[in-house]
Amino acid sequence: MPGTRTSFKDMDCGFAQAIELIGDQWCFLIIRNLLLGMTRFEDFNAHLSISSKVLAHRLERLTAAGIIKARVDPRDARGKIYELTPKGEELKLVYGALTEWGDKWSPKAGGVRTEFFDTKTGDMIGGFAAVSKTGRLLDEGRVASRTGPGGSAVRDELATMIARRMVK
Amino acid sequence: MPGTRTSFKDMDCGFAQAIELIGDQWCFLIIRNLLLGMTRFEDFNAHLSISSKVLAHRLERLTAAGIIKARVDPRDARGKIYELTPKGEELKLVYGALTEWGDKWSPKAGGVRTEFFDTKTGDMIGGFAAVSKTGRLLDEGRVASRTGPGGSAVRDELATMIARRMVK
Repeated sequence: MPGTRTSFKDMDCGFAQAIELIGDQWCFLIIRNLLLGMTRFEDFNAHLSISSKVLAHRLERLTAAGIIKARVDPRDARGKIYELTPKGEELKLVYGALTEWGDKWSPKAGGVRTEFFDTKTGDMIGGFAAVSKTGRLLDEGRVASRTGPGGSAVRDELATMIARRMVK
Repeated sequence: MPGTRTSFKDMDCGFAQAIELIGDQWCFLIIRNLLLGMTRFEDFNAHLSISSKVLAHRLERLTAAGIIKARVDPRDARGKIYELTPKGEELKLVYGALTEWGDKWSPKAGGVRTEFFDTKTGDMIGGFAAVSKTGRLLDEGRVASRTGPGGSAVRDELATMIARRMVK
Protein backbone atom coordinates (compact mmCIF):
# COMPACT_ATOMS: atom_id res chain seq x y z
CA MET A 1 0.00 0.00 0.00
CA PRO A 2 2.32 2.80 -1.13
CA GLY A 3 1.73 6.02 0.71
CA THR A 4 -0.02 4.59 3.73
CA ARG A 5 3.03 2.93 5.25
CA THR A 6 4.92 4.61 8.05
CA SER A 7 8.40 5.68 7.04
CA PHE A 8 11.33 4.60 9.17
CA LYS A 9 13.73 6.98 7.46
CA ASP A 10 14.00 9.22 10.50
CA MET A 11 15.06 6.35 12.71
CA ASP A 12 18.77 6.86 13.27
CA CYS A 13 19.73 3.18 13.19
CA GLY A 14 21.46 1.28 10.38
CA PHE A 15 19.01 -1.59 10.62
CA ALA A 16 15.92 0.65 10.38
CA GLN A 17 17.56 2.56 7.53
CA ALA A 18 18.23 -0.70 5.72
CA ILE A 19 14.65 -1.94 5.90
CA GLU A 20 13.39 1.53 4.93
CA LEU A 21 15.67 1.58 1.88
CA ILE A 22 14.89 -1.96 0.79
CA GLY A 23 11.12 -1.54 1.14
CA ASP A 24 8.52 -4.24 1.40
CA GLN A 25 8.51 -7.95 0.71
CA TRP A 26 8.05 -7.47 -3.04
CA CYS A 27 11.26 -5.45 -3.09
CA PHE A 28 13.08 -8.25 -1.24
CA LEU A 29 11.91 -10.74 -3.89
CA ILE A 30 12.88 -8.44 -6.77
CA ILE A 31 16.37 -8.13 -5.23
CA ARG A 32 16.57 -11.93 -4.91
CA ASN A 33 15.69 -12.35 -8.59
CA LEU A 34 18.23 -9.70 -9.63
CA LEU A 35 20.93 -11.44 -7.57
CA LEU A 36 20.07 -14.64 -9.42
CA GLY A 37 20.44 -12.95 -12.81
CA MET A 38 16.96 -11.75 -13.80
CA THR A 39 16.97 -8.35 -15.52
CA ARG A 40 13.70 -7.73 -17.41
CA PHE A 41 10.36 -6.24 -16.42
CA GLU A 42 8.33 -8.98 -18.17
CA ASP A 43 10.33 -11.68 -16.38
CA PHE A 44 9.78 -10.18 -12.91
CA ASN A 45 6.15 -9.71 -13.87
CA ALA A 46 5.69 -13.35 -14.89
CA HIS A 47 7.89 -14.99 -12.29
CA LEU A 48 6.62 -13.13 -9.24
CA SER A 49 2.96 -12.99 -10.36
CA ILE A 50 3.07 -9.31 -9.44
CA SER A 51 0.85 -6.73 -11.15
CA SER A 52 2.58 -4.38 -13.61
CA LYS A 53 1.54 -1.40 -11.53
CA VAL A 54 2.97 -2.75 -8.28
CA LEU A 55 6.12 -3.95 -10.04
CA ALA A 56 6.71 -0.56 -11.72
CA HIS A 57 6.28 1.17 -8.36
CA ARG A 58 8.73 -1.15 -6.62
CA LEU A 59 11.34 -0.80 -9.39
CA GLU A 60 11.05 2.99 -9.11
CA ARG A 61 11.41 2.77 -5.36
CA LEU A 62 14.51 0.56 -5.59
CA THR A 63 15.99 2.91 -8.20
CA ALA A 64 15.39 5.94 -5.97
CA ALA A 65 17.03 4.05 -3.10
CA GLY A 66 20.13 3.54 -5.27
CA ILE A 67 19.82 -0.25 -5.04
CA ILE A 68 19.13 -0.83 -8.74
CA LYS A 69 19.66 1.09 -11.96
CA ALA A 70 17.98 0.82 -15.35
CA ARG A 71 19.63 1.00 -18.75
CA VAL A 72 18.32 0.71 -22.29
CA ASP A 73 18.02 -2.88 -23.50
CA PRO A 74 20.70 -3.31 -26.22
CA ARG A 75 18.38 -5.74 -28.01
CA ASP A 76 15.29 -3.55 -27.89
CA ALA A 77 15.61 0.23 -27.51
CA ARG A 78 12.07 0.44 -26.11
CA GLY A 79 12.92 -1.97 -23.31
CA LYS A 80 14.93 -1.65 -20.11
CA ILE A 81 17.43 -3.83 -18.32
CA TYR A 82 17.48 -3.61 -14.53
CA GLU A 83 20.69 -4.26 -12.65
CA LEU A 84 21.92 -4.03 -9.09
CA THR A 85 24.26 -1.17 -8.25
CA PRO A 86 27.33 -1.95 -6.08
CA LYS A 87 25.14 -0.94 -3.11
CA GLY A 88 22.51 -3.46 -4.20
CA GLU A 89 25.09 -6.18 -4.88
CA GLU A 90 26.22 -5.90 -1.27
CA LEU A 91 22.83 -7.19 -0.15
CA LYS A 92 24.12 -10.62 -1.16
CA LEU A 93 25.07 -11.34 2.42
CA VAL A 94 21.58 -10.40 3.66
CA TYR A 95 20.15 -12.67 0.96
CA GLY A 96 22.44 -15.51 2.07
CA ALA A 97 21.65 -15.12 5.77
CA LEU A 98 17.87 -14.96 5.16
CA THR A 99 17.95 -17.95 2.78
CA GLU A 100 20.00 -20.02 5.21
CA TRP A 101 17.58 -19.17 8.04
CA GLY A 102 14.51 -19.91 5.88
CA ASP A 103 15.91 -23.21 4.65
CA LYS A 104 16.51 -24.23 8.24
CA TRP A 105 13.37 -22.94 9.93
CA SER A 106 10.48 -22.64 7.48
CA PRO A 107 7.65 -25.16 7.68
CA LYS A 108 8.71 -26.46 4.27
CA ALA A 109 12.28 -27.01 5.40
CA GLY A 110 13.79 -30.47 5.39
CA GLY A 111 17.02 -30.23 3.53
CA VAL A 112 19.33 -27.70 1.99
CA ARG A 113 17.30 -26.14 -0.80
CA THR A 114 19.77 -23.45 -1.74
CA GLU A 115 23.48 -24.12 -1.90
CA PHE A 116 25.97 -21.31 -1.86
CA PHE A 117 29.29 -21.86 -3.59
CA ASP A 118 32.58 -20.14 -4.22
CA THR A 119 32.68 -19.00 -7.87
CA LYS A 120 36.49 -19.11 -7.88
CA THR A 121 37.05 -22.61 -6.49
CA GLY A 122 33.60 -24.14 -7.02
CA ASP A 123 33.63 -25.27 -3.37
CA MET A 124 30.42 -25.24 -1.40
CA ILE A 125 30.19 -22.48 1.14
CA GLY A 126 29.86 -23.49 4.77
CA GLY A 127 27.50 -20.68 5.67
CA PHE A 128 27.25 -17.09 6.79
CA ALA A 129 28.70 -15.92 10.05
CA ALA A 130 30.15 -13.17 12.14
CA VAL A 131 33.93 -12.98 11.88
CA SER A 132 36.51 -11.47 14.18
CA LYS A 133 38.81 -8.63 13.08
CA THR A 134 41.46 -11.28 12.38
CA GLY A 135 39.08 -13.30 10.18
CA ARG A 136 38.23 -15.94 12.79
CA LEU A 137 34.76 -17.47 12.62
CA LEU A 138 32.60 -16.61 15.65
CA ASP A 139 29.79 -18.46 17.38
CA GLU A 140 26.55 -16.51 16.78
CA GLY A 141 25.66 -16.86 20.46
CA ARG A 142 28.65 -14.70 21.33
CA VAL A 143 27.65 -11.80 19.12
CA ALA A 144 26.17 -8.70 20.77
CA SER A 145 25.89 -5.09 19.67
CA ARG A 146 26.28 -1.60 21.13
CA THR A 147 26.16 1.99 19.94
CA GLY A 148 29.28 2.73 17.89
CA PRO A 149 31.34 5.89 17.37
CA GLY A 150 28.98 7.25 14.66
CA GLY A 151 26.27 7.30 17.31
CA SER A 152 22.63 6.24 17.15
CA ALA A 153 20.00 8.09 19.12
CA VAL A 154 17.58 5.20 18.62
CA ARG A 155 19.92 2.66 20.14
CA ASP A 156 20.72 4.92 23.09
CA GLU A 157 17.02 5.54 23.74
CA LEU A 158 16.35 1.82 23.53
CA ALA A 159 19.18 1.01 25.92
CA THR A 160 17.87 3.60 28.39
CA MET A 161 14.33 2.19 28.27
CA ILE A 162 15.57 -1.35 28.81
CA ALA A 163 17.88 -0.34 31.67
CA ARG A 164 15.00 1.48 33.37
CA ARG A 165 12.95 -1.73 33.28
CA MET A 166 15.81 -3.75 34.77
CA VAL A 167 16.11 -1.68 37.94
CA LYS A 168 12.36 -1.34 38.57
CA MET B 1 -2.46 -3.88 6.00
CA PRO B 2 -3.17 -7.33 7.44
CA GLY B 3 -5.23 -9.49 5.15
CA THR B 4 -4.60 -7.56 1.94
CA ARG B 5 -1.00 -8.61 1.50
CA THR B 6 -0.08 -11.40 -0.87
CA SER B 7 1.29 -14.44 0.90
CA PHE B 8 4.62 -15.88 -0.22
CA LYS B 9 4.18 -19.06 1.81
CA ASP B 10 3.69 -21.23 -1.25
CA MET B 11 6.96 -20.10 -2.76
CA ASP B 12 9.33 -23.01 -2.35
CA CYS B 13 12.42 -20.95 -1.63
CA GLY B 14 14.13 -20.44 1.72
CA PHE B 15 14.46 -16.72 1.15
CA ALA B 16 10.75 -16.23 0.29
CA GLN B 17 9.81 -18.41 3.25
CA ALA B 18 11.99 -16.31 5.53
CA ILE B 19 10.41 -13.00 4.52
CA GLU B 20 6.95 -14.55 4.72
CA LEU B 21 7.66 -15.81 8.25
CA ILE B 22 9.22 -12.57 9.46
CA GLY B 23 6.45 -10.37 8.06
CA ASP B 24 6.57 -6.68 7.38
CA GLN B 25 8.89 -3.90 8.43
CA TRP B 26 7.24 -3.51 11.85
CA CYS B 27 8.05 -7.15 12.55
CA PHE B 28 11.69 -6.54 11.59
CA LEU B 29 11.85 -3.64 14.07
CA ILE B 30 10.18 -5.67 16.83
CA ILE B 31 12.76 -8.42 16.28
CA ARG B 32 15.57 -5.82 16.44
CA ASN B 33 14.25 -4.50 19.77
CA LEU B 34 13.90 -8.05 21.16
CA LEU B 35 17.49 -8.84 20.11
CA LEU B 36 18.57 -5.71 22.00
CA GLY B 37 16.75 -6.84 25.16
CA MET B 38 13.30 -5.24 25.03
CA THR B 39 10.52 -7.54 26.29
CA ARG B 40 7.36 -5.56 27.16
CA PHE B 41 4.33 -4.49 25.14
CA GLU B 42 4.31 -0.93 26.56
CA ASP B 43 7.99 -0.52 25.70
CA PHE B 44 7.57 -1.60 22.06
CA ASN B 45 4.50 0.62 21.95
CA ALA B 46 6.37 3.68 23.20
CA HIS B 47 9.71 3.10 21.49
CA LEU B 48 8.40 2.26 18.01
CA SER B 49 5.49 4.76 18.09
CA ILE B 50 3.33 1.92 16.82
CA SER B 51 -0.41 1.72 17.55
CA SER B 52 -1.49 -0.88 20.13
CA LYS B 53 -3.65 -2.58 17.52
CA VAL B 54 -0.87 -2.92 14.95
CA LEU B 55 1.61 -3.98 17.64
CA ALA B 56 -0.73 -6.67 19.02
CA HIS B 57 -1.28 -8.02 15.51
CA ARG B 58 2.45 -8.16 14.76
CA LEU B 59 3.23 -9.87 18.09
CA GLU B 60 0.55 -12.49 17.34
CA ARG B 61 1.97 -12.97 13.88
CA LEU B 62 5.51 -13.43 15.17
CA THR B 63 4.23 -15.86 17.82
CA ALA B 64 2.36 -17.91 15.19
CA ALA B 65 5.54 -17.96 13.10
CA GLY B 66 7.42 -19.45 16.07
CA ILE B 67 9.84 -16.52 16.18
CA ILE B 68 8.76 -15.20 19.60
CA LYS B 69 6.94 -16.61 22.61
CA ALA B 70 5.04 -14.89 25.41
CA ARG B 71 5.12 -15.76 29.10
CA VAL B 72 3.45 -14.28 32.17
CA ASP B 73 5.36 -11.35 33.65
CA PRO B 74 6.73 -12.57 37.02
CA ARG B 75 6.32 -9.02 38.38
CA ASP B 76 2.75 -8.51 37.17
CA ALA B 77 0.51 -11.52 36.47
CA ARG B 78 -1.68 -9.41 34.14
CA GLY B 79 1.32 -8.56 31.96
CA LYS B 80 3.34 -10.51 29.43
CA ILE B 81 6.99 -10.83 28.62
CA TYR B 82 7.92 -11.42 24.99
CA GLU B 83 11.05 -13.35 24.15
CA LEU B 84 12.73 -14.73 21.05
CA THR B 85 12.62 -18.49 20.57
CA PRO B 86 15.84 -20.24 19.43
CA LYS B 87 14.46 -19.84 15.88
CA GLY B 88 14.08 -16.10 16.47
CA GLU B 89 17.50 -15.79 18.12
CA GLU B 90 19.06 -17.16 14.95
CA LEU B 91 17.93 -14.04 13.09
CA LYS B 92 20.86 -12.31 14.78
CA LEU B 93 22.98 -12.82 11.69
CA VAL B 94 20.29 -11.27 9.45
CA TYR B 95 20.13 -8.35 11.90
CA GLY B 96 23.90 -7.97 11.78
CA ALA B 97 24.11 -8.13 7.98
CA LEU B 98 21.26 -5.61 7.53
CA THR B 99 22.68 -3.23 10.14
CA GLU B 100 26.15 -3.37 8.61
CA TRP B 101 24.69 -2.66 5.16
CA GLY B 102 22.48 0.18 6.47
CA ASP B 103 25.34 1.78 8.39
CA LYS B 104 27.42 1.72 5.23
CA TRP B 105 24.86 2.72 2.61
CA SER B 106 22.02 4.71 4.13
CA PRO B 107 21.81 8.46 3.47
CA LYS B 108 22.46 9.04 7.16
CA ALA B 109 25.60 6.93 7.15
CA GLY B 110 28.94 8.43 7.98
CA GLY B 111 30.49 6.26 10.62
CA VAL B 112 30.00 2.98 12.39
CA ARG B 113 26.78 3.58 14.28
CA THR B 114 26.42 0.04 15.56
CA GLU B 115 29.37 -1.95 16.81
CA PHE B 116 29.19 -5.70 17.12
CA PHE B 117 31.36 -7.35 19.72
CA ASP B 118 32.28 -10.78 21.03
CA THR B 119 30.58 -11.27 24.42
CA LYS B 120 33.27 -13.76 25.48
CA THR B 121 36.39 -11.76 24.67
CA GLY B 122 34.94 -8.25 24.41
CA ASP B 123 36.71 -7.85 21.06
CA MET B 124 35.03 -5.90 18.32
CA ILE B 125 33.69 -8.02 15.51
CA GLY B 126 35.13 -7.45 12.04
CA GLY B 127 31.86 -8.00 10.24
CA PHE B 128 29.55 -10.56 8.72
CA ALA B 129 30.64 -12.75 5.87
CA ALA B 130 30.34 -15.99 3.96
CA VAL B 131 32.74 -18.62 5.22
CA SER B 132 34.12 -21.73 3.55
CA LYS B 133 33.48 -25.24 4.92
CA THR B 134 36.87 -25.02 6.60
CA GLY B 135 36.02 -21.70 8.27
CA ARG B 136 37.91 -19.50 5.83
CA LEU B 137 36.52 -16.01 5.22
CA LEU B 138 35.32 -15.50 1.64
CA ASP B 139 35.10 -12.45 -0.58
CA GLU B 140 31.40 -11.62 -1.11
CA GLY B 141 32.03 -11.16 -4.82
CA ARG B 142 32.85 -14.86 -5.05
CA VAL B 143 29.58 -16.05 -3.53
CA ALA B 144 26.92 -17.48 -5.85
CA SER B 145 23.99 -19.81 -5.25
CA ARG B 146 22.30 -22.75 -6.94
CA THR B 147 19.43 -25.14 -6.22
CA GLY B 148 20.53 -27.56 -3.49
CA PRO B 149 19.66 -31.18 -2.72
CA GLY B 150 16.35 -30.35 -0.99
CA GLY B 151 15.19 -28.82 -4.28
CA SER B 152 13.40 -25.58 -4.97
CA ALA B 153 10.89 -25.34 -7.79
CA VAL B 154 11.05 -21.56 -7.62
CA ARG B 155 14.79 -21.44 -8.16
CA ASP B 156 14.61 -23.95 -11.03
CA GLU B 157 11.85 -21.97 -12.73
CA LEU B 158 13.85 -18.76 -12.29
CA ALA B 159 17.00 -20.37 -13.71
CA THR B 160 15.02 -21.63 -16.72
CA MET B 161 13.52 -18.19 -17.41
CA ILE B 162 16.91 -16.51 -17.18
CA ALA B 163 18.59 -19.12 -19.39
CA ARG B 164 15.87 -18.68 -22.02
CA ARG B 165 16.64 -14.93 -22.14
CA MET B 166 20.37 -15.58 -22.54
CA VAL B 167 20.02 -17.64 -25.72
CA LYS B 168 17.43 -15.41 -27.38
